[in-house]
Amino acid sequence: MNERVEREHTDGAADFGAVFESWREHMERALAARLPDAATVPERLHEAMRYSVLGGGKRIRPALLFATARTLGLQAAEVEAAACAIELIHVYSLVHDDLPAMDDDDLRRGRPTCHKAFDEPTAILVGDALQPLAFQLLARDPALPAAPAIRLRLIDILSEASGSLGMAGGQAIDLAAEGQRLTIEQVEDLHARKTGALIRASVLMAAECVPDLPRPQYEALARFAAAIGLAFQIQDDLLDVLGDTATLGKPAGADREHAKPTHPVIIGIEESQIRVRMLHDQALDALAVFGERAEPLRALANWLLSRRY
Amino acid sequence: MNERVEREHTDGAADFGAVFESWREHMERALAARLPDAATVPERLHEAMRYSVLGGGKRIRPALLFATARTLGLQAAEVEAAACAIELIHVYSLVHDDLPAMDDDDLRRGRPTCHKAFDEPTAILVGDALQPLAFQLLARDPALPAAPAIRLRLIDILSEASGSLGMAGGQAIDLAAEGQRLTIEQVEDLHARKTGALIRASVLMAAECVPDLPRPQYEALARFAAAIGLAFQIQDDLLDVLGDTATLGKPAGADREHAKPTHPVIIGIEESQIRVRMLHDQALDALAVFGERAEPLRALANWLLSRRY
Repeated sequence: MNERVEREHTDGAADFGAVFESWREHMERALAARLPDAATVPERLHEAMRYSVLGGGKRIRPALLFATARTLGLQAAEVEAAACAIELIHVYSLVHDDLPAMDDDDLRRGRPTCHKAFDEPTAILVGDALQPLAFQLLARDPALPAAPAIRLRLIDILSEASGSLGMAGGQAIDLAAEGQRLTIEQVEDLHARKTGALIRASVLMAAECVPDLPRPQYEALARFAAAIGLAFQIQDDLLDVLGDTATLGKPAGADREHAKPTHPVIIGIEESQIRVRMLHDQALDALAVFGERAEPLRALANWLLSRRY
Repeated sequence: MNERVEREHTDGAADFGAVFESWREHMERALAARLPDAATVPERLHEAMRYSVLGGGKRIRPALLFATARTLGLQAAEVEAAACAIELIHVYSLVHDDLPAMDDDDLRRGRPTCHKAFDEPTAILVGDALQPLAFQLLARDPALPAAPAIRLRLIDILSEASGSLGMAGGQAIDLAAEGQRLTIEQVEDLHARKTGALIRASVLMAAECVPDLPRPQYEALARFAAAIGLAFQIQDDLLDVLGDTATLGKPAGADREHAKPTHPVIIGIEESQIRVRMLHDQALDALAVFGERAEPLRALANWLLSRRY
């Protein structure tokens, strides 16, 4: 690896760790306050919702939303409800993806998956109930100062990103692709839907909260999000190959076991690493229009792509 | 049964059949136009979504919404997007309820259930993808002339009705109740959540589309919806006991087989019929404030509670 590039890409990543950690704590509180209490009927469902959402997770999508907000001059408190909405959608997708009929995973974030800790019907209902909660936050959460028309745009973006043309559709393509030979273009289309759509939504939902944002800035953020979303997914697939179960909090090598078509499987580890670096450069290039202001997004990108878990 | 009451309750039900049928056809077209085409990637998921939503279903929730709209002087076209949203939520709940881990049903509306016609992962994803589509319609469907603040109220009502305090929570309680002895009060609480919440939302979403609706009228509609929702569920449970598989389009006696606590099981068939009639009277009483204008809602109530399937 080129030394100059290595330095450039990891500068600030260490310092940024503390900011990222403070956002995680912010999210833990924000989510805990918005989930129904475990003492509220139906108690077991609410307990399972809290188990699935709280006490773990890197909160990468909220971090992207917070970093975009900061780049655009917004406070974290102004977008925390939107960050909660996107994280609830992400968690519901994990709970359903882990189901026996889907990826059949027993471990998630180092703990038993929802259907293991509770039961399968409860896990289905946890996912089913987290979805409307996400949209309800965008519709009425008082912490979100956005005007009604902006709230509707946030709901529109999140619903599109999570539906059959976004995340849920990506999961359908992913399941159908198991054991199939896909081209790298097909794999990247799959990623753009399955994980890319929600990452893009995280960035664009923050952008929507600035009503008079110039179009070129909005488009620059969309380009940043597309590049970082794909780079993040390839990095994830690399970690699945290179990591170990204890660090990942889920079984290493699970993708190969499921015969999932991923970059490391199709183009090899080294080429995959090169692709991540190229996308990382594209992401940073897209931020040029913001100058110094985009430092939080740059630091987050560097942090995400140098992570080991 | 008292003859006078019998006449009063079924008057207009026969004539209303044609109106109801025209609403069903309206809904079939409205839903078909709003679901992604089966030729759009991912094709199989979209095919399964269309299979699950189209070509069947009594469209009772949309009919309640249309009848309320007509009572309040709105055209069906003004609320068809809201009617589609509520029907998409209803259908997603049927697809998930039918899953092997839930009620494990093979037949629905006289056809194989989604996971039988397709497969289990697809059925999970069909439900997951219908939810955001419902909220997206409320956020941006151009056929809905409502102002942004009203659209947000519709999203708020629908998300509350379908979440852990509404429909999804009701299903959790229902699953936990299998084989348990519940009091009739507990059964009615369960019904208020599992089916009542969405029926109430159908009526109230139409009411929200009239921004200056006097509070007493809104509350009268809420009372009507609560009574008709519970009566409808008891009627459903009676039909499960009294009906046959061919007429119902699903196996008769399924509730008893699942040891579900229902009115007929707990208080018997005759007492259940009396309860339906009492709730029917309460529903009609609540409509008194509207005078002649509530004829569509009265006819729908009469039609619903004299149905044989």
